[in-house]
Amino acid sequence: MNVTTGGTTSHYRTVSFDPERNSVLLIEQRLLPHSFQIIATNDFRQTASAIRDMIVRGAGAIGATAAYGFAQGLRAFEGNDLPEFERHLELVYETLSKARPTAVDPVNAMNRIRERLKAAQSVDQKKAMALKEAEFFAEEDVQHCREIGAQGVHLIPDGTRVLTHCNAGWLAFVDIGSATAPMYTAQEKGRNFHVYCSETRPRSQGASLTAWELAQQNVSHEIISDNAAGHLMQRGSVDLVIVGADRVLGKTGDVANKIGTYTRAVLAARHKIPFYVAIPLSTIDWNLESGFDIPIEDRDESEVLGAWGQTKSGAREYVRVANPSSHAVNPSFDVTPAELITGIITPLGIYKPRELKANKPAFGSSD
Amino acid sequence: MNVTTGGTTSHYRTVSFDPERNSVLLIEQRLLPHSFQIIATNDFRQTASAIRDMIVRGAGAIGATAAYGFAQGLRAFEGNDLPEFERHLELVYETLSKARPTAVDPVNAMNRIRERLKAAQSVDQKKAMALKEAEFFAEEDVQHCREIGAQGVHLIPDGTRVLTHCNAGWLAFVDIGSATAPMYTAQEKGRNFHVYCSETRPRSQGASLTAWELAQQNVSHEIISDNAAGHLMQRGSVDLVIVGADRVLGKTGDVANKIGTYTRAVLAARHKIPFYVAIPLSTIDWNLESGFDIPIEDRDESEVLGAWGQTKSGAREYVRVANPSSHAVNPSFDVTPAELITGIITPLGIYKPRELKANKPAFGSSD
Repeated sequence: MNVTTGGTTSHYRTVSFDPERNSVLLIEQRLLPHSFQIIATNDFRQTASAIRDMIVRGAGAIGATAAYGFAQGLRAFEGNDLPEFERHLELVYETLSKARPTAVDPVNAMNRIRERLKAAQSVDQKKAMALKEAEFFAEEDVQHCREIGAQGVHLIPDGTRVLTHCNAGWLAFVDIGSATAPMYTAQEKGRNFHVYCSETRPRSQGASLTAWELAQQNVSHEIISDNAAGHLMQRGSVDLVIVGADRVLGKTGDVANKIGTYTRAVLAARHKIPFYVAIPLSTIDWNLESGFDIPIEDRDESEVLGAWGQTKSGAREYVRVANPSSHAVNPSFDVTPAELITGIITPLGIYKPRELKANKPAFGSSD
Repeated sequence: MNVTTGGTTSHYRTVSFDPERNSVLLIEQRLLPHSFQIIATNDFRQTASAIRDMIVRGAGAIGATAAYGFAQGLRAFEGNDLPEFERHLELVYETLSKARPTAVDPVNAMNRIRERLKAAQSVDQKKAMALKEAEFFAEEDVQHCREIGAQGVHLIPDGTRVLTHCNAGWLAFVDIGSATAPMYTAQEKGRNFHVYCSETRPRSQGASLTAWELAQQNVSHEIISDNAAGHLMQRGSVDLVIVGADRVLGKTGDVANKIGTYTRAVLAARHKIPFYVAIPLSTIDWNLESGFDIPIEDRDESEVLGAWGQTKSGAREYVRVANPSSHAVNPSFDVTPAELITGIITPLGIYKPRELKANKPAFGSSD
């Protein structure tokens, strides 16, 4: 999407690759919204760290980052010994898989590439194919987001007030985003609408990332505290909720997404406000039997105990808000059961959560 | 309650009075949780400023502060001229009333004292009576909180995991608090329980004030992001919710309290978790017909767009978290309808919200 820096507007992708330097190029999302920087990782361990440390975050973006990181790791292999290459491949795969345990996209992306590599005979062929497949994965991510926009745009007629949570925008994908795709498509069609971004404590991705990218695209929006969503719904100020997801269970339609998503779904159900989840197909997990089997990442308590932001002097600082001797628990995701979800917006159409299973063949899933 | 500073534990009240110096003594709540200081106001104008600038906050605490400030102002009067004294009294009353124009407690407290002063004949008698009545008001606040604790303690058997929101603790009253009263009483009885403090964005009273006071009393507690309440309830980790209130409608049982309270009530109802509101009788509004008639204060957007806290160097600073070009809306209270509330814990007993009306005579309300 477009970013304006120093008066110049350019198009950027969240994740891209420099084959000459064998580097993954990432928008340094932890510096947003106060500073826009592109960073390069120089080996797969750095790429895994970038995922773990949330330089890059969001389902599609970390999927593409893992895909590129996987290719990057394989391309760095020296020699022609195939068994040794395979051992190296497993090391790269494991390192990148472990960076974010709740996420399914990195594993899905690497599984697909690993599967295709079987067709290649030599180390050099495998290296070349890995990069080609990673590029294909990233392109596909963009195309899928575009299709999500086309499928979901009718949900945003003129005058709609949309609530979203966290960031399932283009920063969470390679471009365009999932939850934001219907919004950006509605904007292309010249429709007027307004977006409430819930700030999304503890990491404030709504206030920092979603608000930043909506501002960059000139979409009308306001930030609210997470606590205010229920009040706005109660007062009739929200027409539609669209969020993304970290994992959608194909068998049940249950959705794992950023902590606080479940709360918004419960509130939306009470107020009969449509609640949609927008995802590319890669976010569907066909294996797990129940939402309660999804591992929930517990992140560091410091996220809850304070906040990162910019001081008056312009420095980026962490301030401790909480009582110094107190501790916090920080579950980072929650599970929204299928019964609370109006529809899943996918590149292929909008499905009721429990309909996903019956449509599995259309999704082209082989596992 | 107890506060430990420099290794020494002492008992403090949020608000007290030094008759010799004619000073109101207040805990400087804006410095908590990072620094504990008692400040003294030396005349009624300083006391009004302390209320206005939120050195002291919370319904019971500002009621008692206004009561003491009223006595303080009258005691500073020089001479014996009664008409002149009455003019001075009106000045003191107006000055303290205007400090928090939307709050009802300061006015209620001063009205009661002013009414009783009519029985005194001389300036000296009126001065003495004003202080006596202010002391009585503060004592009564403490006594009411103690009775709330006695009424609610059976809700917290051994092993209970309680969720609370914002600060309805002793810092919001003269001592003990309302929502915290059953917890402190359970502690006196030697029961083990655990409290989840939701951080309560945007002003973070849960993370800063409630966590601080629970830590001072050695009550087991953890802070959670506001977004995590639903997840914890879904996982069966919350047995009971107790919050305070800014206003409870006697006619309907609807409750106005800090933004986010409604959300917790909706979640608790879904999970069949008891949801209680603890209040002194002075919080009941017998006039309004519906919760939707309660005016909702919209506070400054800067609260949502950033956070106050302590930097690594120990300075108290505001950091801007949100995208610099974005705006926020900041409704500060919400309304929880009676149907979502299990019970209202008062000093006289626990009532179903819709039973308040029938019990009005017992509450001694004359209006």
